[in-house]
Amino acid sequence: MTLNEFSKALANEFASQTYGSHPVELYEPLRYLMSLGGKRLRPAMTLMATALFTDDWQKAIKPASAVEVFHNFTLMHDDIMDKAPLRRGKPTVHEKWNDNIAILSGDVMLVQAYELLAEIDDHLLKRALKRFNRTAAEVCEGQQLDMNFESREEVSEEEYIQMIKLKTSVLLGFALELGAIIGGADEEAIEALYEIGVNIGLGFQLMDDLLDVYGDPDKFGKQIGGDIIANKKTFMLIEARNKATGETKITLENWLQETRFNPVEKVAAVTAIYDSLHIRAIAQQRINAYFDKAFHLLDALQVEEVRKNELRAFASMLIDREV
Amino acid sequence: MTLNEFSKALANEFASQTYGSHPVELYEPLRYLMSLGGKRLRPAMTLMATALFTDDWQKAIKPASAVEVFHNFTLMHDDIMDKAPLRRGKPTVHEKWNDNIAILSGDVMLVQAYELLAEIDDHLLKRALKRFNRTAAEVCEGQQLDMNFESREEVSEEEYIQMIKLKTSVLLGFALELGAIIGGADEEAIEALYEIGVNIGLGFQLMDDLLDVYGDPDKFGKQIGGDIIANKKTFMLIEARNKATGETKITLENWLQETRFNPVEKVAAVTAIYDSLHIRAIAQQRINAYFDKAFHLLDALQVEEVRKNELRAFASMLIDREV
Repeated sequence: MTLNEFSKALANEFASQTYGSHPVELYEPLRYLMSLGGKRLRPAMTLMATALFTDDWQKAIKPASAVEVFHNFTLMHDDIMDKAPLRRGKPTVHEKWNDNIAILSGDVMLVQAYELLAEIDDHLLKRALKRFNRTAAEVCEGQQLDMNFESREEVSEEEYIQMIKLKTSVLLGFALELGAIIGGADEEAIEALYEIGVNIGLGFQLMDDLLDVYGDPDKFGKQIGGDIIANKKTFMLIEARNKATGETKITLENWLQETRFNPVEKVAAVTAIYDSLHIRAIAQQRINAYFDKAFHLLDALQVEEVRKNELRAFASMLIDREV
Repeated sequence: MTLNEFSKALANEFASQTYGSHPVELYEPLRYLMSLGGKRLRPAMTLMATALFTDDWQKAIKPASAVEVFHNFTLMHDDIMDKAPLRRGKPTVHEKWNDNIAILSGDVMLVQAYELLAEIDDHLLKRALKRFNRTAAEVCEGQQLDMNFESREEVSEEEYIQMIKLKTSVLLGFALELGAIIGGADEEAIEALYEIGVNIGLGFQLMDDLLDVYGDPDKFGKQIGGDIIANKKTFMLIEARNKATGETKITLENWLQETRFNPVEKVAAVTAIYDSLHIRAIAQQRINAYFDKAFHLLDALQVEEVRKNELRAFASMLIDREV
């Protein structure tokens, strides 16, 4: 089994899912959002985790797809809250239709995720369901914290890490945990897989923060410096505010206060401050630490080494990503 | 076991549910909405259904509360979509806080409903979960149809009945069905309980339509004639449009077209048309037919007659309600 095989199996699964038909206003947005694709990282992680413990990873396909449908549900509702015009380069659901349709279609999408999750062996269902519930609630908590932070003057690094852990990482943790549960792993291994996923998720999100500043404009999907322009309290900014002193601190805070500015100029100036404070290296170090943690946990896992190859390759790919 | 006992058990349950705490913006609206009370009809129905089949109805309390939490989730999101300012006489969540908080708090409330549902015996979980998913999707379908109907010129009676069945009745059906499942009923009885609930729900909703016109202003919770003022395509209006001919039809349609009117005058005029067409009697007949169906199914149910008393008394109370 290779990542390619997992991806193919998932593509087949998503192509065959029908979701419902009437009324069309309810189900069309769901199909639309799912059809925009995306990397399907999360369900692939579930399949990889199952394949660590059993050759019969195919039984994990439907529950794995629940994780992806849930993820897309959060995108649909988050995009309303963030008033985001685009998702994967296309109009968001609330833009293409309207807010009400995006609310209700998102609701039915969350229900659909539960329906896919229910396609798990009976004796595993309660455990998977309770863990899914906990994770889903945490993702909502993370989104609420993210919104709260927007209107706050200061956010500590600890608070920020906790927020991205809830908003992003616990779902990656659950994706691997779910795979381990389906694969019949023992308690210790299930917990280890969860931790691996959470650490990959933290590394992945901090990489996003780093690439917003230092990404290759030709490869990075979003506008470089978008977080800087918006004063988003990312790891980069929080770290810079902690490290800056004297004149540098004053200049940085002035840029944060400035309401009328040339975006290109602001991005260049703040990036120069980050450079002077070595924020890139600090972020990279932290990213490496999270991925190292994940690799160590994977190393220590009591399964045949050859079975770990896919997940290792996958994590390496995420580390080396430029987009 | 009496309705009073069931209500007490549910009141204790809801008083002890904590829902989560951090961030407070996420969980406070959930607690607020649940604290506004309401009649808790749905979870009481679940307990009554369980008690038809076993004395150990207490094991149904937590799953029963899932039905109530789900119902309140739909209220929170519907109120955003309907731009409703008040719920149970108090500000709606999106009014007291804002739309984003009502969206996200509603999401976590739906997750909470699943968490309560998970408190069911392992061997019953998959069945209950799949039926809950189906019901939840149908309730979303009903809400979407309701919104669609607002902007449509004509809605047939059949379409209207289908809409209220999805939006309201299937959840009452599920409430009883869930109780039967937990009580260990056989397939036939489980299906019968579902049908009883759906028919009670249809009767209940049509009674709402009737009371909007003919309710006692001192007892009815809402403004009398609210549906008439808003041109809501209720059973009363659809039936009147079907029955009206000649001058009466023209007068009715004129009132529907009129954008500037004295509300009291419009309510009086449309009510007079309903009177002349005997719409109240037609609606009452239909309501009775749904309740009769429910009673017949209950009569035919193979359980000790004495066990049926509570559910019978409950349905009778709903028939005779004036609010």
